[in-house]
Amino acid sequence: MAFDRENPTVLAIDTSGPVAGCAILKDGRIVHQIAMNHGLTHSETIMAAVDGALSAVGLSCRDVDVFAAVAGPGSFTGVRIGVCAAKGLAHGVGKPCCAVHALETLAMNFYGFDGLCCPILDARRGQVYCAAFDMADGMPVRALEDAAEPLSDFLNRLPKDRRLAFVGDGVPVHAQAVREALGERALIAPPHLRDLRADAAAILAAQRPETWVEARSLVPIYLRAPQAERERKVKLGMRSEE
Amino acid sequence: MAFDRENPTVLAIDTSGPVAGCAILKDGRIVHQIAMNHGLTHSETIMAAVDGALSAVGLSCRDVDVFAAVAGPGSFTGVRIGVCAAKGLAHGVGKPCCAVHALETLAMNFYGFDGLCCPILDARRGQVYCAAFDMADGMPVRALEDAAEPLSDFLNRLPKDRRLAFVGDGVPVHAQAVREALGERALIAPPHLRDLRADAAAILAAQRPETWVEARSLVPIYLRAPQAERERKVKLGMRSEE
Repeated sequence: MAFDRENPTVLAIDTSGPVAGCAILKDGRIVHQIAMNHGLTHSETIMAAVDGALSAVGLSCRDVDVFAAVAGPGSFTGVRIGVCAAKGLAHGVGKPCCAVHALETLAMNFYGFDGLCCPILDARRGQVYCAAFDMADGMPVRALEDAAEPLSDFLNRLPKDRRLAFVGDGVPVHAQAVREALGERALIAPPHLRDLRADAAAILAAQRPETWVEARSLVPIYLRAPQAERERKVKLGMRSEE
Repeated sequence: MAFDRENPTVLAIDTSGPVAGCAILKDGRIVHQIAMNHGLTHSETIMAAVDGALSAVGLSCRDVDVFAAVAGPGSFTGVRIGVCAAKGLAHGVGKPCCAVHALETLAMNFYGFDGLCCPILDARRGQVYCAAFDMADGMPVRALEDAAEPLSDFLNRLPKDRRLAFVGDGVPVHAQAVREALGERALIAPPHLRDLRADAAAILAAQRPETWVEARSLVPIYLRAPQAERERKVKLGMRSEE
């Protein structure tokens, strides 16, 4: 199959959070999409899901133009599983990879929303990974940079004159606090639009061929150093970078 | 597992259009969701998908509180496959069914959109199945009744002062005509929000326990008589009801 940057065939993988998902975009359509939130180990489920998706659609890895992975921010281990899966598949057939941003992918659930979409991910340690995107024109336009901070700090940074849609795995934990702080301006995503979906990641990857890289150059997006590194620094008497 | 109308476990099935999908809602989360747009016969794919979903989540049919089917409007055969699958599963374990409206389920893709969501399905014979829902408060609020009519008639019936988001399998065919008629007021759903998703059907079923019925009472939603019936009437010299 010819390499087609105009209308690429994209295989997108997401294991960056509680959901393990994969999707295939082909001829401008989502031809297959699966999202699993079972509490199972992503490393056990994702390759079977990828394999099932490809064979259901009758494609092999050689037919895929780009392998996209949701590269974070998110669970350190989860992000690495997804990135490594995409790298491995792409490397095997000499095709490019694309790192898709988790918070931007979540914002895609509110395409065209007349306000800001605010993804919040549970980052533990009393923090959320968060950002805000203006959705009024359709695709996400960055409004606030990524941060790892307490929810209340994030809510204080948000503009006071816009509608705000909250998505992400931080929603079930923080919905009440968001509603109390923001009242009717806050829209809480219902379950079907709350989680990250690999099909949205496939669209982002297809739209941005300028961000495609060689498989070996695909790297995770981290907002904080992994816990193991933080602990090592403390042990060595080094000051944390955070 | 106790019957739980407050927070029901819902298995939703959709084969009403080009996509075959199924989803499980449990404890307020979409725990499994699959959408296949392979051009394969839904009757061959849907039961394997249902089986895969239940076993992935570790549930049996007895654990499901309600079996939802997207009951139309849509493909006559497709609607019957989904309705019959839900009926059969529910009947076997003595649980209720819920008929979910295809156009309303599609509108759920634009939850919270500050305007009307306008699902258009390819109804052949130069018509679309269409409706409009006000999404500004979140869940769909009916704005225009269902119709099977030429696209131009539908566009003329739409309000002139609202933003309009177009979803459904009619989008790829009619996007250009919609843009020419409505200009910047028209938002065309991108591929990841274009198609019907069974997870949205599960949310609708969960929200409306008053619409749950015994399995034997589940019926399709048709906007036109099936072609076979129309042809029979012509043959018998009867006047079409349309």
